[in-house]
Amino acid sequence: MRIILPEIKELLGTKQQRIIRRVLSYFEPADIAEVWSDFTPEERLKLFNILDVKLAADIFEFLEEDQMIELLENLPARRKIAVLNEMSPDDRTDLFAALPAGEVEKIIPLLDLDEQNRARELLAYKANTAGGLMTTDYITVPETANIADALRELRTKGRDIDFIQNIYVVDKVHRLQGIIPLKNLLTATPRQRVERVMDGHFPSVGLEMDQEDVAHMFGKYDVISLPVLDKLGRIRGIITVDDVIDVIKEEASEDIYRFSASGVVDEYLSENPLIIARKRGMWLLVLALAGFVSGAVLEHYSFLLSSIVTLSFFIPILMNTSGSAGTQAATVVIRSLAIKRIRIDDIWKVVKKEFVVGILVGLVSGAVTALRAIILNQNPTLALTVMAAMAMTIVLATVLGGVLPLFFARVGLDPALMSGPLITTILDTATLIIYFNVAIFFYGVFE
Amino acid sequence: MRIILPEIKELLGTKQQRIIRRVLSYFEPADIAEVWSDFTPEERLKLFNILDVKLAADIFEFLEEDQMIELLENLPARRKIAVLNEMSPDDRTDLFAALPAGEVEKIIPLLDLDEQNRARELLAYKANTAGGLMTTDYITVPETANIADALRELRTKGRDIDFIQNIYVVDKVHRLQGIIPLKNLLTATPRQRVERVMDGHFPSVGLEMDQEDVAHMFGKYDVISLPVLDKLGRIRGIITVDDVIDVIKEEASEDIYRFSASGVVDEYLSENPLIIARKRGMWLLVLALAGFVSGAVLEHYSFLLSSIVTLSFFIPILMNTSGSAGTQAATVVIRSLAIKRIRIDDIWKVVKKEFVVGILVGLVSGAVTALRAIILNQNPTLALTVMAAMAMTIVLATVLGGVLPLFFARVGLDPALMSGPLITTILDTATLIIYFNVAIFFYGVFE
Repeated sequence: MRIILPEIKELLGTKQQRIIRRVLSYFEPADIAEVWSDFTPEERLKLFNILDVKLAADIFEFLEEDQMIELLENLPARRKIAVLNEMSPDDRTDLFAALPAGEVEKIIPLLDLDEQNRARELLAYKANTAGGLMTTDYITVPETANIADALRELRTKGRDIDFIQNIYVVDKVHRLQGIIPLKNLLTATPRQRVERVMDGHFPSVGLEMDQEDVAHMFGKYDVISLPVLDKLGRIRGIITVDDVIDVIKEEASEDIYRFSASGVVDEYLSENPLIIARKRGMWLLVLALAGFVSGAVLEHYSFLLSSIVTLSFFIPILMNTSGSAGTQAATVVIRSLAIKRIRIDDIWKVVKKEFVVGILVGLVSGAVTALRAIILNQNPTLALTVMAAMAMTIVLATVLGGVLPLFFARVGLDPALMSGPLITTILDTATLIIYFNVAIFFYGVFE
Repeated sequence: MRIILPEIKELLGTKQQRIIRRVLSYFEPADIAEVWSDFTPEERLKLFNILDVKLAADIFEFLEEDQMIELLENLPARRKIAVLNEMSPDDRTDLFAALPAGEVEKIIPLLDLDEQNRARELLAYKANTAGGLMTTDYITVPETANIADALRELRTKGRDIDFIQNIYVVDKVHRLQGIIPLKNLLTATPRQRVERVMDGHFPSVGLEMDQEDVAHMFGKYDVISLPVLDKLGRIRGIITVDDVIDVIKEEASEDIYRFSASGVVDEYLSENPLIIARKRGMWLLVLALAGFVSGAVLEHYSFLLSSIVTLSFFIPILMNTSGSAGTQAATVVIRSLAIKRIRIDDIWKVVKKEFVVGILVGLVSGAVTALRAIILNQNPTLALTVMAAMAMTIVLATVLGGVLPLFFARVGLDPALMSGPLITTILDTATLIIYFNVAIFFYGVFE
C-alpha cells in the first residue's frame, strides 16, 4: 500500500474520484488504515468523503482512536451518521467509550432507532466484562421455526453482519435453547424443525464475566464465538474470537508491565513523558524509600565494613544474583498462574521445586564467586563467607520468589504486583543481613 | 464436571456403558478432558473405549500431550486408528511431532490413504511456520463451478470438518482466485457462477511465514481464518484463529521468560528441577562473572570507601533504582516492539522520551535519597553527591534501557535477550563508577 501513496496523494489533488475509488478497492481496509497517518488531515478528510460508505466504515473501524475522533469532528453530519450506523456495534461502543459523555449523548440520537437502542445497551456494560466485549450482531430464530425460516432470516439480516458462524435458537422469552452452525443449516432439509438440528449443549459466558476469564473460555473450548447470556439464560450478545485476541495481548502486556513496575503504557510514542515518569517514578520512590532500610543495615554493620573492606567488593554481586534468582522464580510462577498451568493450592510443590533449584543454582554461583575471592584476594575465609552467603541468599530468593506471588493470589491480590523491583528490594535487605552474619561467623571462627 | 466424577468412576466399575455414554453426552469434550487426570490409568482406558468414536476423538484433541501418548500406547489398534483418522489434521501433526520419528512411521501407514498423504505433507513443515500451523480441512471449488455445485461440495465434504467459514475458489492449477463466505453462499442464487459471488481480494499468508507474523496478520486484518499459499499462489491449507491464540500466548510467555532470563518453561510443575536450574543458572553464572567487574570497580575505589564509610550506605539504593529504571524502560520498549507499536527506526524518539523521563524520575528519586543523607547523616556534601549520582545514573539507565533493545533488533537479535538481568549488570558497574567520581568531585570541592 505504502508504495502507491504518492500516486494516491496526486490523484487526490485532481477531481479523479472514480479512479481513486477503483484503485483503493484493490486494497484491504486494514492496509488503507495502516497508512492513514501518512496523509495530511485535508487529504484524509477528502479521501474519506470520496469513498463508498461501506468501505469508509470498514476502514474507519481499523483506525486508531484519535484518528477516528479527528474524522468525527470534521466529517459532514450526513456522512458521520452513515458511518456510525454502518459500524459494528461493539467497535462503536469502544469508540463512544473514548469520547466525552456529553459528546456521545449528542451523537446517539442521530443514529437509526434500533442502532440507538443497541448503542445505549452496550454502553451500560463495563468495558472489561463479557457485556463490554460482545456485539449485538447475531441472528436468532424461535424454537418453533423450521430450517426454511432460519434460512430466510439469514438472508434478510445476514447482509449487514460481517461475521456469522451460528444461528441461535431461542424460546418465547429469548432464552438460548441451542445453536446451529451455518454448515449444518446447509446440510439440513428445509422442512426440518430447528429444534431437531440444533446442538443443545454449548458453552456460554455470563454478562458480567471478566474479560480475562472470557479469553480463557475461548482457549479451553477452542471456539470461534461464544454466546453471552444474562442471569435468566437469555441471549444478550455474542463475543467473537478476534476481540478476544486483543484481550489476550492486553492482558499479557499488563502482566509484563506490572511485573517490571513500569506502569501500563498503551501508546508509548504518543504518551506524555510526564505521565510515563509519574507511573514509573512512583515505584522508584518506593524503592528509594526502601533503600533507607538497606542503608540502615549497612550502617549497622559498618564496623565490619571498615575493618574488612574486601567484604564490600562482594555486595553488588550478591545483591544482583539473589535479586535475579528471585525475579526468575517469581516470573515463572506468575506466568504459570496467569495461563492456568499452576493453581494456588500448588504452593507446596512450588516450595519444594524452588528449594531444590535454589540449592543447585546457589552452590554453583557461590563456587564461582568464591573462586574470585581465592584468586584475586587470596583469602579462604572470605571465599567461604561469600560461598555460604550466596547459596543461602539464592535459596531464600527462589523460594520467596515462588511463594510470594501465590500468597498474593491467595489473599486476592494480583500476583503480578509481586513485581521484580519489589522482590529485589525485599531480597536486598535480607541478602545484606545474611551476608554480614555469615561473615561474623566465619571470621570469628577462622581469624 | 468435577462434582459428578465419583458417580462416573462408580459407573465405570459396573457394566452400565449406555448410562456412562448418556451422562457424558451432556458435557463438552473440553470439560471431560479437563478432569482426565483425575481418573486412574485403567479408568481412562476403559472410559475411552466405551465412548462413541467421534466424542472420543473430540476429547482426545483436548488432552495434554503425555495423556494422548499414554492412550496411544494402550488402546487397541482399531480404536487407535479410528481416533487418529477422526482427528483434525493440524492437531494430529502436533501430536506426531511429539512422538519419536520411528513411532510415527509405524502409525502413518495405518491411517486412511488420504489422511496418510495429509499427515506426511503437514509433517514436512516447520512447527513454528504457517505450514506447521495450518490444517488441510477446507473446501475448494473450481472457478467454473456455480453456487449449486459449491453447496453440493459443502454437503459432501462439510460433515467431517469442524469449522467452515469460507469456500475457496481455485483455478485449474489450484491457485486461489477468491473466497466465498458461507453466508454469501446462502444468499446467492444456485445458478450463479462462483466467480461472480467470490471476493477476489483477500489477505493470505505464505507457507514459510513465521508464526509470530501469522499471528500479527490475524490481528491486523481482524479475520477468523487465513488461507496459506505456496510460492505459486496455490492454496495448501488454512489457519484458523484458535491455533493463533495459542501462538500469541506462547510468544508472550517466551518474551516474559526471556526478559527475566528464567528460561522458557512450558510445564513448570512437571519439569525436572535440574533442567530448570540449568536454564536459570546459566544466567546467574553470567551475572556472577560480571560481578568480578563490579567487584574490581569497588576494589579500585576502596580508598574512598575506607575513608568515607557513609558512601557505602548508598550503594544498594543507587544500584537498585538505576537497575529498576533501566528494566522499566527496556520492558516498555521490548513489548512495544513485539506488538508493533514502535519500529526500529523510532530510535531517536525513544532516546528523547527516555531522556526526559529519566531526568524527571532521577531528580525526584535523587531528592528523596538526598533527604536521607541530610536527616540521618547530617551531611550536605553526601546529599549533593547522592542526588547528582542518582539523577545521572537514572538518565543513563532509562536511555540505555530504551536504546539497547532497539539496537539488538537492528542487528537481528531478539530484543528480549536484552533482559532485565543483563541491563542490571551493565548498569551496576556504570552506577558505581559514576557514583565514586561524583563523590571525588564534590568531596574535593567542599571538604
